[in-house]
Amino acid sequence: MIIDRINKLREEMKVNNIDVYYFTTSDDHLSEYVSEYYRTIEYFSGFTGSLATLIIDLNDAYIFVDGRYHLQAEKQCSKYDIKIMKLGLSGVKDPISFLLEKNYKEIGLDGKRISINFGKELNKKGIRIIDKDIYSNIIVDRASFPNSKVYNLGIKYTGKSRKEKLNDVFYCLNGKTLVINNLEAIAYCLNLRGNDVKCTPVFISHLLFYNNEVYFFVDINRFEAELLEELYDDGVIIRNYNSFYDFLKTIKSQEILLDFNKVNYATYLNLYAFNKIFNMLSIIDEFKTIKNQTEIENTRIAHELDGVTMLRFIKWLKENDLKGLSEYDVSIKLRELRLSNKAIDESFNSIVGYNGNASIMHYSPNKDNSKILDNNGILLVDSGGQYLEGTTDITRVIALGEVKEEIKESFALVLSSMFNLSEMIFLEGTTGRQLDIIARKDIWNKCLDYRHGTGHGVGQYLSVHDSPPRINNSSSSLEDNALKAGQIVSDEPGLYFDDDYGIRCENLILCQKHTKNEYGQFLKFETLTLVPFDLDLIDKKYYDQKTIDIINKYHQEVRNRISPYLNDDELKFLNEITREI
Amino acid sequence: MIIDRINKLREEMKVNNIDVYYFTTSDDHLSEYVSEYYRTIEYFSGFTGSLATLIIDLNDAYIFVDGRYHLQAEKQCSKYDIKIMKLGLSGVKDPISFLLEKNYKEIGLDGKRISINFGKELNKKGIRIIDKDIYSNIIVDRASFPNSKVYNLGIKYTGKSRKEKLNDVFYCLNGKTLVINNLEAIAYCLNLRGNDVKCTPVFISHLLFYNNEVYFFVDINRFEAELLEELYDDGVIIRNYNSFYDFLKTIKSQEILLDFNKVNYATYLNLYAFNKIFNMLSIIDEFKTIKNQTEIENTRIAHELDGVTMLRFIKWLKENDLKGLSEYDVSIKLRELRLSNKAIDESFNSIVGYNGNASIMHYSPNKDNSKILDNNGILLVDSGGQYLEGTTDITRVIALGEVKEEIKESFALVLSSMFNLSEMIFLEGTTGRQLDIIARKDIWNKCLDYRHGTGHGVGQYLSVHDSPPRINNSSSSLEDNALKAGQIVSDEPGLYFDDDYGIRCENLILCQKHTKNEYGQFLKFETLTLVPFDLDLIDKKYYDQKTIDIINKYHQEVRNRISPYLNDDELKFLNEITREI
Repeated sequence: MIIDRINKLREEMKVNNIDVYYFTTSDDHLSEYVSEYYRTIEYFSGFTGSLATLIIDLNDAYIFVDGRYHLQAEKQCSKYDIKIMKLGLSGVKDPISFLLEKNYKEIGLDGKRISINFGKELNKKGIRIIDKDIYSNIIVDRASFPNSKVYNLGIKYTGKSRKEKLNDVFYCLNGKTLVINNLEAIAYCLNLRGNDVKCTPVFISHLLFYNNEVYFFVDINRFEAELLEELYDDGVIIRNYNSFYDFLKTIKSQEILLDFNKVNYATYLNLYAFNKIFNMLSIIDEFKTIKNQTEIENTRIAHELDGVTMLRFIKWLKENDLKGLSEYDVSIKLRELRLSNKAIDESFNSIVGYNGNASIMHYSPNKDNSKILDNNGILLVDSGGQYLEGTTDITRVIALGEVKEEIKESFALVLSSMFNLSEMIFLEGTTGRQLDIIARKDIWNKCLDYRHGTGHGVGQYLSVHDSPPRINNSSSSLEDNALKAGQIVSDEPGLYFDDDYGIRCENLILCQKHTKNEYGQFLKFETLTLVPFDLDLIDKKYYDQKTIDIINKYHQEVRNRISPYLNDDELKFLNEITREI
Repeated sequence: MIIDRINKLREEMKVNNIDVYYFTTSDDHLSEYVSEYYRTIEYFSGFTGSLATLIIDLNDAYIFVDGRYHLQAEKQCSKYDIKIMKLGLSGVKDPISFLLEKNYKEIGLDGKRISINFGKELNKKGIRIIDKDIYSNIIVDRASFPNSKVYNLGIKYTGKSRKEKLNDVFYCLNGKTLVINNLEAIAYCLNLRGNDVKCTPVFISHLLFYNNEVYFFVDINRFEAELLEELYDDGVIIRNYNSFYDFLKTIKSQEILLDFNKVNYATYLNLYAFNKIFNMLSIIDEFKTIKNQTEIENTRIAHELDGVTMLRFIKWLKENDLKGLSEYDVSIKLRELRLSNKAIDESFNSIVGYNGNASIMHYSPNKDNSKILDNNGILLVDSGGQYLEGTTDITRVIALGEVKEEIKESFALVLSSMFNLSEMIFLEGTTGRQLDIIARKDIWNKCLDYRHGTGHGVGQYLSVHDSPPRINNSSSSLEDNALKAGQIVSDEPGLYFDDDYGIRCENLILCQKHTKNEYGQFLKFETLTLVPFDLDLIDKKYYDQKTIDIINKYHQEVRNRISPYLNDDELKFLNEITREI
């Protein structure tokens, strides 16, 4: 079947004089998570993972995947004679280098599904792009185009009206044109949410600030009449989603702001010839990450709700014989607990890793193939919820039965490192890359490391991965942005020992203003997450007194904040597992 | 007199159709410290400080100085009707903004005494440069052009022959042309030293790698015949220093590497029209900062010698009644002790600050105006020596009499912060800006800060400020260079309380390879400096046990290493002041 599909594509390629065609896992909005409709790579290769590149030429097909998908791609794609390009292994080239090696000077692709930066990178390397969607017409039984209802997120949650937000954007633009493909930015800016994509409450649309008007390209059937009227009153001009690129063609002689990482190449192609283009971070992204007082108060509530859920989850784990349950069963239980306590959705697919599986980055158990628990080890659970009040993301490690001494020692190193960052006080202007080393230093001191960032930005009832804030040890220019008061980031150092065990401790922390004096404005963090750390993993001898005090103070805060939500049985459990040590 | 000189300059300006002339404190080699010959600003303004900009137009004269020189410039220049532009005060513009405000579209200056980057900055701002030295002809009784003897620094000290170094440069250049104005780089590359500039053993010259030949522009009379022969044997072609710019004019159609921060604008003007210019860090600078095994072993000896000197100095401070002595007297005593123990020179003018004076950044006492000691406070001494074996730079704070509790607490914060950095273990690729926060974090935690970098690179019997290595909290691209094994940096956090006291603790530390494993190459530091910290300032209650252990271990190392150099009396003193606490 897959082979037939590929052959059909090759026929289209020949008709269009295209020797090689390039697929990405992105949608037209360069989203991290995409709706079924955009699962083109799955259609042509069978691969179901979230990130890959598929290159098909007239004779061969190649799928490029990173370490977490090496095995999966082999299993899903090899049978169709698709070559698995295992990125990260020595000698395996990235897609662009691969194309250069094969001497392809011209490739076909859908310009809506690559970023401007990627398009420019191809051009720079001497590869010409034929921007043509040749695949949509041959896909049979395609999932329907996402069209969930779009709804209002009230001022009670947003703290700032749509009109105010739009005015602020216009003020900053000062007559310039701004194009937004990014779905989170649009949802934020218009105080709207939808359900087009799993785990992220967004809806497919484009937004355009042009000539002092705001154009909203979206299917009008997705709105209640009342909401349409509201949008009309706020001056939002709705246009058909499909008319977006034709509309762009009419824009001339403007100064246009595009974030080359977040705007697609097709948008650029429709604009660059007759306008002056500037590559810059969108002002909406900047606004979006800085939470206002209403958002902050709401997010504290979201974390109380999530704390209650996680408490119930930990109680369930600790008080039941889990023998025979799989990691997947556990993830379903957690999902049920969240959805029954006001969560609208999970904020991502839970990572539930038992012992060795916890050492696999991005591991997510599936129904047919997940480890069975046996009351002898530790369970790493990284999960989160979407609430009207905010988005959560939390990782805890739970002891199931006896744990070896080495694990307690590793746990102490990770937990102390997490607190090292959250307790930091720092001058405004300090970047995520500088802060990263604070969480990493004690781990480096033991000649260990974790191969992921320490923290990412978190949206407000939006994507669990929100940029620009980021705390990681990478030199790319984006990461050099200074952390700002009002931004929420995760704080999640870890330690991973292949096939043995993995530990990660993750709280969300809110950057806030601290003292201002002759040296400048100092910033600090408020910990938002309200979930106990498993005392069964904590041996005081591995901590200094300062950290013990911080753990006790944290557990007291958890008790104070979530007790009001609990029944007697739960309360008793909470008091026990947050006892002073 | 100064006024006459300025008027004479104005006559020259008129003859040359120049409305405004721009002076810098740099020499033709953009050195940090310059020889008498280049003290042009002093000649035309009376100002004797090390850093300033002097702008003279047909009616007025302006001198731009930073905070440390506000008072001095007022005292030295106001009487000549020169306006003092106090940089750092609100409303005071930097020189370029000042010129723009005054609407000067064209300025005269000596292109040899500004960097390419600065020249380009002027151009970018729309200010045209008239590159003409109109001042040399009118200076009367100018100090003679520096012409100290140039001597060989043997392989015993350098660990790598001149021939090898030159071959390495040619190998890296791969046919490209390289121009070096920077005196330290030339001295390093040719294994030569001189005495043209106080505190830095360099000699005025240029170096040019061109057409597989190395051209050395220097006055031939400065060499012994034997050394000339050696240079000849190594393939070094000597040309007259003054023929440098004419020679550049003959270079055509080459790819030329210039470090736009370290090469002067006149060099650029002579090359850019007929060649392809690349702005990059010179490969020699890169080599220079990475010390080889011989250099490392030598520098350890230099620090033993310097440790002995500092011990004698501390003994003198502690065992004598200093009442009535001035800070300047103390600096002279220290200089005598250094020079009598194998130091060839100081590596910079000692900073000796008593109580409040220690809070003044860059304070250096002078004969006529320095504080008198009274056995009631603390003395900050930042000094260093030039030895054939290496260059030192060390700061200690010494208690003279009783000190208040607050000082001991501040001292603990600074000393612990210094050790926080020197004890770090970190992955290769970690930058100076990331490491900076390790020294700063505990100080930030108290909402305090120090307004200087944490560390600078240090040369090998060369400049005490060696770039690129730098540990500071600045976002400029240069600082983003990762620290490399073999580089020596200072580790010098501080705390300063205006008019009250200042504390700084400074050791030099050598970056070295540590464990290499699956996570990568870890790096660590070896502390080079061997001078006790004053136990009279250390109260154990302000330290955690880990830091106490580090202090004891450090003092034991100091004892082990410098005891062999001492007489009985000194040894007894050393044992007493490095006793275990």
